Amino acid sequence: MRFHDIGERALISRIADILGGIEKDDCAVIALDDEYLVVSTDILHRETDFPDQATPWQIGWMSAAVNLSDIAAMGAEPLGILIASGIPPETDVELIDEIFRGIRDCVEAYGTEVLGGDTDAHRELTLCGTALGLVSRERILRRRGARPGDLLCTTGSLGGAGAGLKALEVGRFDLARRLLEPRPRVQEGMALSRTGAVTAMMDNSDGLALSLHDLAEAGGTGFIVDYDRIPLADEVRAIAESDEEALEMVLSAGGDFELLFTVREDMIDEARKACELSVIGRAVENGIWLERDGSMMPIPRSGYEHGS
Amino acid sequence: MRFHDIGERALISRIADILGGIEKDDCAVIALDDEYLVVSTDILHRETDFPDQATPWQIGWMSAAVNLSDIAAMGAEPLGILIASGIPPETDVELIDEIFRGIRDCVEAYGTEVLGGDTDAHRELTLCGTALGLVSRERILRRRGARPGDLLCTTGSLGGAGAGLKALEVGRFDLARRLLEPRPRVQEGMALSRTGAVTAMMDNSDGLALSLHDLAEAGGTGFIVDYDRIPLADEVRAIAESDEEALEMVLSAGGDFELLFTVREDMIDEARKACELSVIGRAVENGIWLERDGSMMPIPRSGYEHGS
Repeated sequence: MRFHDIGERALISRIADILGGIEKDDCAVIALDDEYLVVSTDILHRETDFPDQATPWQIGWMSAAVNLSDIAAMGAEPLGILIASGIPPETDVELIDEIFRGIRDCVEAYGTEVLGGDTDAHRELTLCGTALGLVSRERILRRRGARPGDLLCTTGSLGGAGAGLKALEVGRFDLARRLLEPRPRVQEGMALSRTGAVTAMMDNSDGLALSLHDLAEAGGTGFIVDYDRIPLADEVRAIAESDEEALEMVLSAGGDFELLFTVREDMIDEARKACELSVIGRAVENGIWLERDGSMMPIPRSGYEHGS
Repeated sequence: MRFHDIGERALISRIADILGGIEKDDCAVIALDDEYLVVSTDILHRETDFPDQATPWQIGWMSAAVNLSDIAAMGAEPLGILIASGIPPETDVELIDEIFRGIRDCVEAYGTEVLGGDTDAHRELTLCGTALGLVSRERILRRRGARPGDLLCTTGSLGGAGAGLKALEVGRFDLARRLLEPRPRVQEGMALSRTGAVTAMMDNSDGLALSLHDLAEAGGTGFIVDYDRIPLADEVRAIAESDEEALEMVLSAGGDFELLFTVREDMIDEARKACELSVIGRAVENGIWLERDGSMMPIPRSGYEHGS
């Protein structure tokens, strides 16, 4: 049996068994005296993770951004990132410089820094980032914690990255910027955690469908998404040729880096003061559902998965 | 100009300039309230970093060990490691299991754990580990800090990894174990840091020559190594065909994971109580020298370097 036969998620489950179980969150969580240290690592490489059209600067920006998004998803303040890079020996040094300028510009935009790293020769360009953050013990936000009745919310708008993928295919590069230069919701995550109104949170980087299933599994709940309340990204409106294609961009495409979270219904006003958000549904006992035109359809677990 | 034209160290220097300077230590150091958090990331991949003869279990062990060695080099206690893995889709799942069993067995041998990770499909097997540790502010050991007159010391014995490389070439697999299953000096690093006797420390994973140059550069000193006091690994004695070959294994081969450190001369007894060590020389004002048969020869900066 091979990796491509079982896919990324089944493999992770096997590995977790061997390692004695790892709680699924956007970050690993380590208890310090008064706070939690949160840490996340993401490995990205040229072929699978970066669109061909991405500039070296954008490759650097993306590498930092995906890691900072995991810190944001815990409600934590970033301490910094480490970047381990595997670089083909024949790579032009100016191109490598541009990648690291993109990394630097991203961490600076979020008030943090590159703490260290490693460099190695590699057959394929590979960037493995590790981000660290701190959050007080009572304010950490995890994937588990949603209860039926909680409101399901998202920051920003959805589907921009999926629309960006299509934009690249059809040569509309002006619509691909959200895909190539994602903006992790660091300030929003910290502000939401301070409200005490949020019961569970993660980022939607693998697409809304998979994220909903992950959030439901962690919390032992289900969700209903209200179709009419999905905040479509402008790029989706500009490029999707049908409502179905637009919905597919929201549900299945990876690369959005919004926060998906649940809020106690009686505290939604506090959450709204923390940041701009859209209520897109609610937590229920079971199932992942799309409510559209008065009928309910199950949302399959169909997000982006590596290896298969 | 390409990566292979300038080599790994020149590239790291360029990157450090872009990022605004990064202090060279085995780990990044982050100040928390009373302690330092130390973090290190290392990217390893099939072609360059793992001998062909390494078993999957050994590949896993090595990946964890190299990261734990960086924590040891700061005198810190490991909090755990994260492992981001890039795995070719056609890889047999049983082989992947074995890699992660090796990782698990290594972290368990050092009383720590795998905290989290990431998995991705990749053209070449790639394991990017990140290790975290904690050390009190007054006990952290850095590369800088040696003063002329301090005694230069090492844990264990030297050249075992270099001898292991030759052992693999000539089919003496019994002599390759230290190369394939390195034992980071975690307990020794913690015990040495508690003595207050150590002025500077790093691991010698890139070979003794390069490590001496790094330690000298960080501290603004030089070193004299006493040839007669070098503790040769048994594997070196078994396989080196000449004194010169043995010395080359000590100086230039990467893959030993001993601690190289300096001790205040008046406190060497305290250091000896912390762990077994060999005094191999002393810190001086300038230059990296080998003292042999009454004469001094410069030791060139000739350790293992990626990319070139």
